[in-house]
Amino acid sequence: MTVVRALFFDVFGTLVDWRSGVAREAQRVLNPAGYNLDWTAFADAWRGEYQPGMEEVRSGRIPFSRLDVLHRRNLERFMPRFGLHGLSDDILRELTLSWHKLDAWQDVPPALARLKKRFLLAPVSNGNVSLMVDLARRNDFPWDAILGAEVAGDYKPKPRVYLAACEAFDLAPAECMMVAAHSNDLAAAAACGLRTGHIARPDEHGPGTGERGPTVAVDVAGEDLGDLAKRMGV
Amino acid sequence: MTVVRALFFDVFGTLVDWRSGVAREAQRVLNPAGYNLDWTAFADAWRGEYQPGMEEVRSGRIPFSRLDVLHRRNLERFMPRFGLHGLSDDILRELTLSWHKLDAWQDVPPALARLKKRFLLAPVSNGNVSLMVDLARRNDFPWDAILGAEVAGDYKPKPRVYLAACEAFDLAPAECMMVAAHSNDLAAAAACGLRTGHIARPDEHGPGTGERGPTVAVDVAGEDLGDLAKRMGV
Repeated sequence: MTVVRALFFDVFGTLVDWRSGVAREAQRVLNPAGYNLDWTAFADAWRGEYQPGMEEVRSGRIPFSRLDVLHRRNLERFMPRFGLHGLSDDILRELTLSWHKLDAWQDVPPALARLKKRFLLAPVSNGNVSLMVDLARRNDFPWDAILGAEVAGDYKPKPRVYLAACEAFDLAPAECMMVAAHSNDLAAAAACGLRTGHIARPDEHGPGTGERGPTVAVDVAGEDLGDLAKRMGV
Repeated sequence: MTVVRALFFDVFGTLVDWRSGVAREAQRVLNPAGYNLDWTAFADAWRGEYQPGMEEVRSGRIPFSRLDVLHRRNLERFMPRFGLHGLSDDILRELTLSWHKLDAWQDVPPALARLKKRFLLAPVSNGNVSLMVDLARRNDFPWDAILGAEVAGDYKPKPRVYLAACEAFDLAPAECMMVAAHSNDLAAAAACGLRTGHIARPDEHGPGTGERGPTVAVDVAGEDLGDLAKRMGV
């Protein structure tokens, strides 16, 4: 069996808790402006625009735009539903940076530090490079490189994103494992020849809403990243 | 004056000693095959093919090819001059990986560790991503991201390489400083609006052969990277 040399990570939901982080940041930015919303619902609504926004790029209807740009556009699309009108450009920019200030699930930093001793590590996320860099600085993610959508010029689950990551490390797909809490991401990676690792994030969208386990065949599944590392002998 | 947020680094010659490293690796690989060459002359000859090889890409005569591919092609071009004929593909591949096994000048790792506390750090080298990753692992370079030629799809000193690096970090050129031991690299970066920092590597191509100081106007110049860091208040 081919030896796995590199681990590629999904980030939003898999490594970081976007829901509580976006809710916290939105409250921090909008409360002083006099708004008092259901902040978790606000985060869920923003995330709800995520796939449709990227689909504009994946389908070729608009040229590649980095996720920060899509997040801003998505925000302006849904915010009237929360009674938000006429916010200043500074506030909209600050809100969009919420996604740069998310905290890792607590199992992640120690597990990545252990995995770094055995594998090359990179995010293969739909987030842009500067977003990944800010999350890495905040959470001590020890990346060897920042790969993913911006480097590939398209969004997961398009094959180009997974294959561009393998090529950047000069590895065959079978030498690379995609790690994610989302079975559709892993199915797409597997179709490109990568190995796959699932980790459970049962509370990603709120208690009991996330995947407790993979819904597709995977090479390894863990209850969290520490458990996955242990199952890989690290 | 705009605050510098990111430092971009040239790597070959500026951070790592390619000459002694390539000579050492060539000897390690070719000696057991019965060859006994002037290993330093071999390294110099290989480096001599560097700019002409990249010029094929910069001029548009060939599509972008990562530096590992150019190094291999350049090797096959000059090696007959050293009496090297009929080497196996394994040996040629192993030789090409010499460039992945270079050691940092000794001032570099501690200076980068200090600079990391104040600045975002990335290589903006003509080396490909996997080459940069291997050098970083070997020498503890604490990069936030791997930028440079492969990400930009062209070679320095083409403007696209410097500008793509700024864009990846979502920074204006004036917020970024290119650091190199080569004045032509810095002149090209400055023409794109980046700040510039020169470090002296007087022995890059052998004793007394490298730049003792910049031959163009720069924002800061240091005797080595530790000195440059000190001059930047770090």
